[in-house]
Amino acid sequence: MKIEGKDTRSLWFENGVIKFIDQRKLPFEIEIFTAKNVDDCAFAIKDMVVRGAPAIGAAAVYGMVLGENDVERTSKIIRSTRPTAHDLFYAIDYMIKEIKKGKDPLDAANIYVEDIINRCRRIGENGEKLIKDGMKILTHCNAGALATVDHGTALAPFRVAHKNGKKFLVYVDETRPRCQGLLTAWELEQEKIPYVYIVDNAAGYFMKNKEIDLVITGADRIAKNGDFANKIGTYEKAILAKENDIPFYVAAPISTFDKSIKSGKEIVIEERGKEELALINKYKIMPDYIKVRNPAFDVTPAKYITGYITEEKIIKKLE
Amino acid sequence: MKIEGKDTRSLWFENGVIKFIDQRKLPFEIEIFTAKNVDDCAFAIKDMVVRGAPAIGAAAVYGMVLGENDVERTSKIIRSTRPTAHDLFYAIDYMIKEIKKGKDPLDAANIYVEDIINRCRRIGENGEKLIKDGMKILTHCNAGALATVDHGTALAPFRVAHKNGKKFLVYVDETRPRCQGLLTAWELEQEKIPYVYIVDNAAGYFMKNKEIDLVITGADRIAKNGDFANKIGTYEKAILAKENDIPFYVAAPISTFDKSIKSGKEIVIEERGKEELALINKYKIMPDYIKVRNPAFDVTPAKYITGYITEEKIIKKLE
Repeated sequence: MKIEGKDTRSLWFENGVIKFIDQRKLPFEIEIFTAKNVDDCAFAIKDMVVRGAPAIGAAAVYGMVLGENDVERTSKIIRSTRPTAHDLFYAIDYMIKEIKKGKDPLDAANIYVEDIINRCRRIGENGEKLIKDGMKILTHCNAGALATVDHGTALAPFRVAHKNGKKFLVYVDETRPRCQGLLTAWELEQEKIPYVYIVDNAAGYFMKNKEIDLVITGADRIAKNGDFANKIGTYEKAILAKENDIPFYVAAPISTFDKSIKSGKEIVIEERGKEELALINKYKIMPDYIKVRNPAFDVTPAKYITGYITEEKIIKKLE
Repeated sequence: MKIEGKDTRSLWFENGVIKFIDQRKLPFEIEIFTAKNVDDCAFAIKDMVVRGAPAIGAAAVYGMVLGENDVERTSKIIRSTRPTAHDLFYAIDYMIKEIKKGKDPLDAANIYVEDIINRCRRIGENGEKLIKDGMKILTHCNAGALATVDHGTALAPFRVAHKNGKKFLVYVDETRPRCQGLLTAWELEQEKIPYVYIVDNAAGYFMKNKEIDLVITGADRIAKNGDFANKIGTYEKAILAKENDIPFYVAAPISTFDKSIKSGKEIVIEERGKEELALINKYKIMPDYIKVRNPAFDVTPAKYITGYITEEKIIKKLE
């Protein structure tokens, strides 16, 4: 990914600490958050300094490096940060295994992170084939480089298609409550890929008016039958796409597939606090008395999905 | 409608001026906006001091009173404020006709406004029959007393059901970009009707989880075939309701039915400025470079609708 023309990553390990591009500050300010210990790292995941399933996985492996002296305590703390992202648990289990084998923790973590980056690059190459000149493509949330260390999942095909000279327009869902669409718009702006930012309510309008040809989103966890959890609102967009005969693809590395769960019914959905709705950049947009509910994710049944863009290939149907 | 326990209206004529509850300031502050002339009145409609099709109609008739000395100029100015609300044009045409007949303009305007209020009251009585004890009901935008002078359209059945002692929970869509869900939450809070405020992305989640039994929204314009324009996002909720076998009702007075248009295809959709997305209560939530599109309404095809709650009866199918 680029920031002001310079190649970078959303997080990295440097001189015994983890550095994160603080996603709570984007797109207004580019600030680095430094995690010096396991608790800092857990805070970064919990408070969404870092977000997106693969990036959370990367944060977790580096967190295990910071806490290598007490693997059990470290894995317990990091595991308890967020319940939905399968990559988090996958990453911790990987590190426990490698450390048990006697591998150097930092080497193991770096291998894990380079592997994520490579897989995202290949997701981009595979997904690029779906993008035709002149297309208008909707994406929801931010499944970009910020969410995956580099390249992104849903955004990776856009980077490759743009590099290959294809012309297309990205419709970016705002993605309330946290407005991760702003992160996506920021990434696309950095890459000079044309986009328009829309409220979540408008996606259906553009689909109905034949202004959307394709939808690509990321995923936080994919069940054995192809049902998948992703940012709240993904389910809505999938149904709208189906109703309007628009192909809907999920871009995710194989590590997001959780064969241990049969269907989406087994996926635990995290309900988060009121402040996510009530505060935007610390500015209060509603009075204290307003009562809210705030599910952070939803589950989209496989029947609404056209296919899954993975690092290996585009899978049309699961099982 | 009640404000802090006291009966009131969203706008009224008093000593030669129009008084509006300034909806731009709610739910944080209760402020009165005074329109002393036609341009003030046009500003109030355009800048959304007043909003909601029936309330805009009421503003228009009182605006015609303020500009009774030059009916042609006045009607032209007010007509040019907002393109979607059928009530606006209906109200102006009504006033022109009454003034031509020699009727006192204020008397004619008051008759029009009292008529709106009575019709809304009857919409409430008719719609109330759909509400059963223990129901969870979704509404989108604000089709409350604020939008209709008193009672509301979509909210009118809630007021009557609550008065009749029925227990139910209202799910209030935030309704980005302008978050009119806050107006709805504010009205329900004033009436002590239980509600939860949710982001627009979460409505599908709650429908899928069988937490919504019924959807009621308002309408800005209904075509002859039953297609209707309403706040952006209504189309999305209607498709989601259909997909989840949840009844979806549109509450609107007969004046919202525009027999001059055959279908929704003829309805002009207003695209509004970027500042509606970028500013919340004047606080900037995105950088200047972000490119946006902002359609203010969408059209929902009649096939997704269960019925229309009017002051005369509940209509199951149009034509």
